[in-house]
Amino acid sequence: MPRQAYVNGRYLPHREAAVHIEDRGYQFADGVYEVVPVFNGALVDEDLHLDRLDRSLGELRIAQPMSRAALKLVSRELMRRNGLSNGFLYMQVTRGVAPRDHKFPTNARPALVMTTRQMKPHSEQVLGEGLKVITVPDQRWDRCDIKSVSLLPNILGKQAAVEAGAYEAWQVDRDGMVTEGTSTNAWIVTQDNKVVTRDATHSILNGITRITLLELIRKEGYELEERCFSVEEAKAAREAFLTSSTSFVLPITQLDAKPIGNGHPGILTGKLRQHYMDYMQSLRKSA
Amino acid sequence: MPRQAYVNGRYLPHREAAVHIEDRGYQFADGVYEVVPVFNGALVDEDLHLDRLDRSLGELRIAQPMSRAALKLVSRELMRRNGLSNGFLYMQVTRGVAPRDHKFPTNARPALVMTTRQMKPHSEQVLGEGLKVITVPDQRWDRCDIKSVSLLPNILGKQAAVEAGAYEAWQVDRDGMVTEGTSTNAWIVTQDNKVVTRDATHSILNGITRITLLELIRKEGYELEERCFSVEEAKAAREAFLTSSTSFVLPITQLDAKPIGNGHPGILTGKLRQHYMDYMQSLRKSA
Repeated sequence: MPRQAYVNGRYLPHREAAVHIEDRGYQFADGVYEVVPVFNGALVDEDLHLDRLDRSLGELRIAQPMSRAALKLVSRELMRRNGLSNGFLYMQVTRGVAPRDHKFPTNARPALVMTTRQMKPHSEQVLGEGLKVITVPDQRWDRCDIKSVSLLPNILGKQAAVEAGAYEAWQVDRDGMVTEGTSTNAWIVTQDNKVVTRDATHSILNGITRITLLELIRKEGYELEERCFSVEEAKAAREAFLTSSTSFVLPITQLDAKPIGNGHPGILTGKLRQHYMDYMQSLRKSA
Repeated sequence: MPRQAYVNGRYLPHREAAVHIEDRGYQFADGVYEVVPVFNGALVDEDLHLDRLDRSLGELRIAQPMSRAALKLVSRELMRRNGLSNGFLYMQVTRGVAPRDHKFPTNARPALVMTTRQMKPHSEQVLGEGLKVITVPDQRWDRCDIKSVSLLPNILGKQAAVEAGAYEAWQVDRDGMVTEGTSTNAWIVTQDNKVVTRDATHSILNGITRITLLELIRKEGYELEERCFSVEEAKAAREAFLTSSTSFVLPITQLDAKPIGNGHPGILTGKLRQHYMDYMQSLRKSA
C-alpha cells in the first residue's frame, strides 16, 4: 500500500496530496507546524508538541483545526496506515484558503496536513565522529518562538552549512551570541562542566527535545545555565551538541572548522544522549 | 466560463488549482512572487516586474521556471482566458516539490502558479478623504529586498491596521525610522515640498510603482530625497502617501490617529497620482 497523507479530512496517497493554491500557507507562510518523533511506536512528548502547536496557533490567532483528541486519533490512524514505528509525524496547520489578501480572512477554515516518515537510527559514524557546524548571521524575524512555516532564512542557513561540508549552521545575533541552529537547538559544555543553552525568549524556538533534556539534566543533577553564549565561548568550550526532534542529542566536534575540545564527541554529551535515549525507550507505545 | 489559473503547465478551473503538500512554498516559504497590474489591457511595467522576479529567484538560487518569453505568453493566455483588462496578474515561483528537508533539493523543478484578479478603480471616497495608517514595529527578517512569500509579519501588521480601522501599517525599525507598509512603499512630502521615500536597501522591497514614480518625479522636476525618515518627521509632514502595484498612488491623511498636514489629501500627492495614471494610460495594450 502506498504511503498516505492526511489532508483536510481525507487520507490520500501521498503523491496525490494537494492543497489549493490560495491556501494562505502557500501565499503568505501563514501557518505553523510540528514534528513529533515516533520511537518504537511511541509518539514522543506528544502533549508537549500539541501544547506548543496550540501556543503557535494562539500567537497567530489561527483557530484549532480540530480538538486535541481528534488530532491524536488522526495521528494514530495515519501511523497505522503507514506502518510507522520509527520516524516522525509532521503536521502543518494554516489559516486556510481565501482569496489573496494580507488581512485575516473572515470565513476561512484552518487547513490541516499530516504526513509520516520513517527514519533510520543515527549512524555509528555520526555518533563516533560528531558533526561539523558553521556559523551564519541570524537573519530571521523577531518571533522565532512561533513555530511557523516562515522558514526561508533557516533553509538558506542549512544550505550554507551543507555547502561548507557541515551538518548545521548556528545562527548568530547582532551581539555575536548564538541563537540556535536552523532546525536544532544549540548547546555547549564549559571547561568546568556546566551545560549551557540559550534561554527561551522570542529569539529561539523552544525545542521539545530541549525541554525534555533540560528536565533530565536537572533530574540527574548536572550543572546547568540557561543563558546566551557567544561564538567565542562556544569555540573555547569543552563540548558542544545539538538537539531536535529528529536528531535527539548529537555531538558537535567542529565549529567554523575549529575542533571543539579534543575534537572528539564529548563525554557529558554522550551521557546526555544516553539519558534521552533511555527516556524514549521508557515510553509506552501510542495506541 | 469559470475563472482559470495556471499551475505547472496546465490551465485549470480556479477552484481545482492545487499544489502538492510538499511544495517547498507550502512547507518552507521557499518561493517568490510578483503582482503585475493590468490597466486597460496593458501589463504595467511587465519587464521591470520580471526583472525583479529574476533578481528574487537569483538571490535564493531558485532556477527560472521558464524563459521570459514563455512567461509572457502564459501571462497573456491567462489574461485572455479570464477576460482580464483591469486588475492584476499574480505569479508565484517556488523551489518545487521535494521530500521535506531544509537544504535545497537536488532535483526539484521550480513550480509556477499564475492567477488573475479583476479590480475596480479606487473609490472617490478613498481619493477624496485619504487613508488612515498606523505604525507597528518592523519584525521582519533582514532580506526584505527579496520579494518572497515569507509574509507572516506583513499579514500580522496589515491585520493590526484593519483592527485599528486603518488601511495600512507602516513598519518602524529599531531606530524609529519607517521602513515601508506591509504591502506598500511609504512616502512623505516635507513642509518645504520635498518628496521623501526610504532608499532601497535590504530593509525594503523596491516597489515597481516606487521605481516608476521616482522616474516621473525626476522627469517632472520635483525635489526628491531618497533617505530614511522617522515617525516623528512623518507626523510633521505636509503630505503623505503610499504606492503599490494595486494602490498606484494613494493619499494618507492620518498617521497613528494624527492628521497629516491639514488632514486632507495633499496637493502634490494628487499631482503625482495623476502623473502615474497618465503614465498607465499611455501604455499600449499587451498582446
